[in-house]
Amino acid sequence: MSARGLFITMEGGEGVGKSTNLAFLEHILKQGGIDVVTTREPGGTHLGEEVRELLLRVRGEPVNAVAELLLIFAARAQHIDELIEPALAAGKWVLCDRFTDATYAYQSGGRGVARDTVEQLEKLVQGKLRPDYTLLFDAPVEVGMRRARDRGELDRFEQETLKFFERVRQGYLQQAQIDGNRYRLIDAGQSLDDVQKGLAEFGDELLSRWAMVEARQ
Amino acid sequence: MSARGLFITMEGGEGVGKSTNLAFLEHILKQGGIDVVTTREPGGTHLGEEVRELLLRVRGEPVNAVAELLLIFAARAQHIDELIEPALAAGKWVLCDRFTDATYAYQSGGRGVARDTVEQLEKLVQGKLRPDYTLLFDAPVEVGMRRARDRGELDRFEQETLKFFERVRQGYLQQAQIDGNRYRLIDAGQSLDDVQKGLAEFGDELLSRWAMVEARQ
Repeated sequence: MSARGLFITMEGGEGVGKSTNLAFLEHILKQGGIDVVTTREPGGTHLGEEVRELLLRVRGEPVNAVAELLLIFAARAQHIDELIEPALAAGKWVLCDRFTDATYAYQSGGRGVARDTVEQLEKLVQGKLRPDYTLLFDAPVEVGMRRARDRGELDRFEQETLKFFERVRQGYLQQAQIDGNRYRLIDAGQSLDDVQKGLAEFGDELLSRWAMVEARQ
Repeated sequence: MSARGLFITMEGGEGVGKSTNLAFLEHILKQGGIDVVTTREPGGTHLGEEVRELLLRVRGEPVNAVAELLLIFAARAQHIDELIEPALAAGKWVLCDRFTDATYAYQSGGRGVARDTVEQLEKLVQGKLRPDYTLLFDAPVEVGMRRARDRGELDRFEQETLKFFERVRQGYLQQAQIDGNRYRLIDAGQSLDDVQKGLAEFGDELLSRWAMVEARQ
């Protein structure tokens, strides 16, 4: 029987380079012989991707903040049940582009939903499941927004104001303080080379620890 | 200023005649001079109807029970915020085809989700909002299922087993016992004429009470 896989999440605001760096870390881990599953939130399953589409679509009417929060956790419940838990149980590593830290940052920090409402749903949907490691890509809001805008048409979230994204950033930094052991704070304002040098070190560190775990099996 | 409108929900399993009778009650109330808004759950808003479509679609993979529950409450949060509360506040009556009693019956009774999980979400999404009256159309499961099948292709819920629908029926009857004052139990096994005779009496009763409330304004 193989050991339970590691659950690693990548977090950060708009335009901080999560997607590029997720692919980079995936490559390092796969070269190290790890069976890696990459996925994203909201999404990751058929149902979840349909919910994602509902959430990102630009609408004429405002979306109620609690409705948005419940849609996100609905997609997450399906994601955990259908993909994340079975993969981890089979010894695969799961690399996920955003998870519940994003809900604290966007829905609580950004939209102002009470923190304990998010906690209540986290408990309901996840039980004891938490990421083993979370990479938080942090950059000044203006930098990320410029990159996001350069990518083209903005979705419902990307259309929010700078003030909103400042609250999101602070929400993320607060999360990293609450549960410091799990987080690696990455300065996404650095050059891509420097970011990826740090990521490569992180990947090597995980791979050596994993070799020790496997040796004990 | 007009008095706050009444919130009336119609509940029951498959094929019990809710839709036909909702239109009948709407007609009676409108003839009595009431400004009536009819709506349904899941649904009632653009977002809610999109969630409904996700929920009813027949899928290759099973839908996680908590994911289903959260989708329903997400649609409900939007429905209350965008349609139900503004209508009631403006003195309109809201006639809704299914509401939270259906969640207790289907998701808790039928799927086995813990009752207190539903209660927790009811509190989060509704605050103190509860229907003023709930008409529960009750019929033996075989009768309703035959009618639903005769209507044509079955959705994801209608494809469930007879045992599932028996649990849903018992879930509804349990709700009616817990909060007896709010419920009118309607024997949907009767002829349509008899059901509508009862509904007409109920409508008249509401209209006379309303006339007294209005007179006091």
